[in-house]
Amino acid sequence: MTDEPRLSHVDEQGRARMVDVGAKDETQRVAVARGEIHMRPETLRLILGGELPKGDVLAVARVAGIMAAKRTHHLIPMCHALLLSSVQVDFEAQPPQSADADGAILITASARVTGKTGVEMEALTAVSVAALTIYDMAKAVDRSMRIQNIRLVEKRGGKSGDIVLE
Amino acid sequence: MTDEPRLSHVDEQGRARMVDVGAKDETQRVAVARGEIHMRPETLRLILGGELPKGDVLAVARVAGIMAAKRTHHLIPMCHALLLSSVQVDFEAQPPQSADADGAILITASARVTGKTGVEMEALTAVSVAALTIYDMAKAVDRSMRIQNIRLVEKRGGKSGDIVLE
Amino acid sequence: MTDEPRLSHVDEQGRARMVDVGAKDETQRVAVARGEIHMRPETLRLILGGELPKGDVLAVARVAGIMAAKRTHHLIPMCHALLLSSVQVDFEAQPPQSADADGAILITASARVTGKTGVEMEALTAVSVAALTIYDMAKAVDRSMRIQNIRLVEKRGGKSGDIVLE
Amino acid sequence: MTDEPRLSHVDEQGRARMVDVGAKDETQRVAVARGEIHMRPETLRLILGGELPKGDVLAVARVAGIMAAKRTHHLIPMCHALLLSSVQVDFEAQPPQSADADGAILITASARVTGKTGVEMEALTAVSVAALTIYDMAKAVDRSMRIQNIRLVEKRGGKSGDIVLE
Amino acid sequence: MTDEPRLSHVDEQGRARMVDVGAKDETQRVAVARGEIHMRPETLRLILGGELPKGDVLAVARVAGIMAAKRTHHLIPMCHALLLSSVQVDFEAQPPQSADADGAILITASARVTGKTGVEMEALTAVSVAALTIYDMAKAVDRSMRIQNIRLVEKRGGKSGDIVLE
Amino acid sequence: MTDEPRLSHVDEQGRARMVDVGAKDETQRVAVARGEIHMRPETLRLILGGELPKGDVLAVARVAGIMAAKRTHHLIPMCHALLLSSVQVDFEAQPPQSADADGAILITASARVTGKTGVEMEALTAVSVAALTIYDMAKAVDRSMRIQNIRLVEKRGGKSGDIVLE
Repeated sequence: MTDEPRLSHVDEQGRARMVDVGAKDETQRVAVARGEIHMRPETLRLILGGELPKGDVLAVARVAGIMAAKRTHHLIPMCHALLLSSVQVDFEAQPPQSADADGAILITASARVTGKTGVEMEALTAVSVAALTIYDMAKAVDRSMRIQNIRLVEKRGGKSGDIVLE
Repeated sequence: MTDEPRLSHVDEQGRARMVDVGAKDETQRVAVARGEIHMRPETLRLILGGELPKGDVLAVARVAGIMAAKRTHHLIPMCHALLLSSVQVDFEAQPPQSADADGAILITASARVTGKTGVEMEALTAVSVAALTIYDMAKAVDRSMRIQNIRLVEKRGGKSGDIVLE
Repeated sequence: MTDEPRLSHVDEQGRARMVDVGAKDETQRVAVARGEIHMRPETLRLILGGELPKGDVLAVARVAGIMAAKRTHHLIPMCHALLLSSVQVDFEAQPPQSADADGAILITASARVTGKTGVEMEALTAVSVAALTIYDMAKAVDRSMRIQNIRLVEKRGGKSGDIVLE
Repeated sequence: MTDEPRLSHVDEQGRARMVDVGAKDETQRVAVARGEIHMRPETLRLILGGELPKGDVLAVARVAGIMAAKRTHHLIPMCHALLLSSVQVDFEAQPPQSADADGAILITASARVTGKTGVEMEALTAVSVAALTIYDMAKAVDRSMRIQNIRLVEKRGGKSGDIVLE
Repeated sequence: MTDEPRLSHVDEQGRARMVDVGAKDETQRVAVARGEIHMRPETLRLILGGELPKGDVLAVARVAGIMAAKRTHHLIPMCHALLLSSVQVDFEAQPPQSADADGAILITASARVTGKTGVEMEALTAVSVAALTIYDMAKAVDRSMRIQNIRLVEKRGGKSGDIVLE
Repeated sequence: MTDEPRLSHVDEQGRARMVDVGAKDETQRVAVARGEIHMRPETLRLILGGELPKGDVLAVARVAGIMAAKRTHHLIPMCHALLLSSVQVDFEAQPPQSADADGAILITASARVTGKTGVEMEALTAVSVAALTIYDMAKAVDRSMRIQNIRLVEKRGGKSGDIVLE
C-alpha cells in the first residue's frame, strides 16, 4: 500500500499503458543481453563449417537480430520507440562438454542509445530473434534445438546507474 | 558426402536463400511450441494478482505473441509468408518449487495453417515475444528474470508427418 | 447457456485468440464500408480545389487507405492475414446542407478476396485511415473536423451469404 | 492571395510533401482524442461482462490502440516519426439512453511527446484502431455497429499553445 | 479510344486502385530481375575481400534483398500481397574494363510464386534494396556509387506466357 | 595497414554491425538524390496525361517514395532510425531526345533531419521506391522500362561538411 513495488506498465486499475518517460533525463544508455541455442553436435558442426562455408547462418542471424532490435517497439506493446545509436550481435560456439552432451551457440547482443529509456528490451529482442533465425535455418536437420537462458547481463546509464549482473 | 544432411536455407555455395516450396503439397499443419520465463516469487505474485487486477500483464503478452506470429516472416529472414488459420497463446503459473527457488510462467503457443510450409517458427516466435513482453512489463521490479527452454513440442502435417516431442 | 451468441475472438475463459478458420470454405468475398469526415465549408473548399490543384489531398488519402487495408492484420490483433484481390477507395464531396452547416467528404471502400475469412475489417480500416489522412492534411486550417459514421454497408460471400445494410 | 489559409501538406503546385519541421522548437506536447463505437445493448453487455470475464475485449483494444499510435507515421503518409513519451487509451461504457436506443463504448486516447510536431494524429489513430478492434471482436454478433465522432478534444504545447475543444 | 493500352492501376477517372485479380488463374510464376551498382575499383576491392573477410557486405545485402521482396506490397502501393514460394539474390563482381573505368557488382534476383499475380515487382524490389544496402555499407569510402540498369529479364507463367528479355 | 579506408559497417573481423553514432553531433543534415526511369515514348505519354487525368501515377509514386523514406531503417539493415524533419519527392518528364529514343521521368528526392547521422539512404530509398512504383503502375503496357542512375547529388551538414556532386 505504501512503498510496495509495482509493475510500471500497469496502472492502478490494472490497465496496460505506456509509462510516461517525458520527465526522464536523456543519458547515454547501454544494455547487454545474452542467450544460448542448444543443438546436437552435428548441427553445430554443420552451422560452423565443415562442408558449408563458414559463417553464413550466423551472418544471417546477426542481420536478423540487428533488424529486430530496431523493431522492438513494434513487437513489445508497451515499449517506447527510440533512436538506437548502435546494435551489435556476436556469437560464440560452445562445443559439447561431454560425449553425449549437446553443443550450443552463445549469443551476445549490446544496444546503445542516448535517450530517456533503457535499451534492455532491444538487446533481449536481438538475442531472441538471432536465436530464432539460427533455429529456422537448422530446423530441417535438428528438431531438438532449445533456446535457453535469455537474460540481461549489463545495464549502464539512467536513473538506476550501472549494473553488471554477470 | 552424398546423403549427408544439409541446412535447407543455405545453398551449395553457402549463400542464404528462401527454400523453394512451390512443389510442396498444401496440407493442414499444426505446430505447438513452449517456453518459460523464470522470475522471483514476488514478481510472479505481482503479475498473477495480489493488488493488481488478475491477468492484465498476461492479456498484453497474449496479444503481443499472437501479433508477432503474424509477423514471423518479417522477422526471420528465410521464413515464408503464410496465411495462419489460427494462433493461440496460453499461460500457466508455476509457483516456486522450494523456499528459495524462483517461480515461472509457462507459455504455450499453437499455430495452424493450410499451406505448403510448417508453422514451427510462428509458434516459437509467439512464445518468444510473449515472454519478452512479460519481461518488459515486470522489469522495473525484477532484473533477474530469464527466458528458458523455448522449444517445439508438437508438429502435425506436412511431409514429415506427425511428431510429438514431449 | 446453450445457444447464446458469443464473441468469436474470446474463448470460454475470456482469453483473446485468433478464431480457427481452417475448416471454412474458400469463397469469393466482398465487403463495402463507408464513413464521413465533417469539416468547415472553407476546409472542404480548400481540399476540393479553389487555388489548389484538384484532388491531391484525396489522392494521398486514397493511397493511404489502400495501403492500410493491406496492413489490417498487423493493426487489428485478432484479424487473419489474407490475400486481397482488390481494394478501392472513393470519395464524394457533400456540400453544407444549410448556411451554418458543415460540409463533409463521404468515403467508400470496397475490398475483395477469395479466401476463408471476410474482408469487413479491411474495408473499415481503409475508410478509417483515409479519413485520418484527410484530417492530417487539413488539420492546420481546421481543428474541428470529426470522423463520423464508419460502418459496414455490404457483405457478400461466406457462410452468412449476402447482406446489404443500406 | 495574401494571408489565405493553406493546407500545410500540399505545396504551391498541389503536390503532397512532408512539411519541414526542422526549425520548430522541441516542446512538451499533449493531445487528447475521443470517439465512440455504438452497438446493440446485448453486444455491449457481452463485451462488458455477463458470461464473459470482464474486460478482455477492451484489454485487446487498448493494446491495439497503443501499438497503432506508435505506427501512425507508417499509416498516415505525411506524418512525421516521433518518439512518443506515453500513450494511454481508456474506455467508458455508455448504456442505452432509452428502451430502443443503442449502447456505446466511449474511447479516449492521450499521447505525449517532447518534440517538434504535435501528436494529434497519434491520439486520433489510437482511438480509431481501438474502435476497429472492438468492432472486429464483436462483429460475429452485431453487424450494425458504427464508429462515431472521432475528434480532437485537447492539444497542449507547440506554437499554437493550449487548446481545449470540449 | 477503343483498344488503346491503358495503365492498369488507374481507373477511367484516373484514380489509383488495386487491379482486381480475383478472376485470374493460380499458376506457377517466376520473375528474374537484374541491376548493377557501379563504384570505384578500390571500393569493389574492399567489398570483395582484400583485408576484409570475403562476402560479408554481400551476405547482408542478400538478406536485405530477400526480406524486402517479402515487403513489396507494403512498399509499392498498388501491389498485391502474395505468398512467395522462393526468393534468391545473387551477386557477380565486374572488374573495371579499362584503367580509368569503374567496377560494378551485378545483382540478379529471382522470385517464384503460385498465385494470381506476377512477381516482377518482388524481383525488382529485391534487386533495388540489395543495391541500396551495398551503397549504405560502402558509402563511407565512396560517394560516387551509382545504381544502374534495374530491369526485368525474364517472366514465366500467367496470361502473357513466358518472356525472356535478355 | 594504417590509414587505409575501411567499410564502416563491417568490423575488424568482417562482421556486420550498426556503426556507433553516439558520440556524433546533432546537426542539420540534408541529402538530395536523383534517378531516372526510362520508358517507351507512349508509356511516358500515358503517364503524363493524354486520356488519363494528369499526374495520378506520379501522385501515387510521390506518396510511396515519402513513405519508404520513413521506413529506410527497416529496409537497409545497418541504417539508423532517425526523425526526418521533411521529405520531398519531385518528378520531371524528359521527352525522347530523338526519333527512336526512349523518354524518361527524372526523380529527385530530398530528405532533412536534425540528428547524428546523414540522410543519404533516406533520399536514395525515396527515389528507388518512387521509381519502382512508376514501374508497377505502367508495367502492363511496357515491360522494357529501366531504372537508371540512382545517385547522391548533394549532402549538407555533418562531419564531412557540404558536398555538391552535380
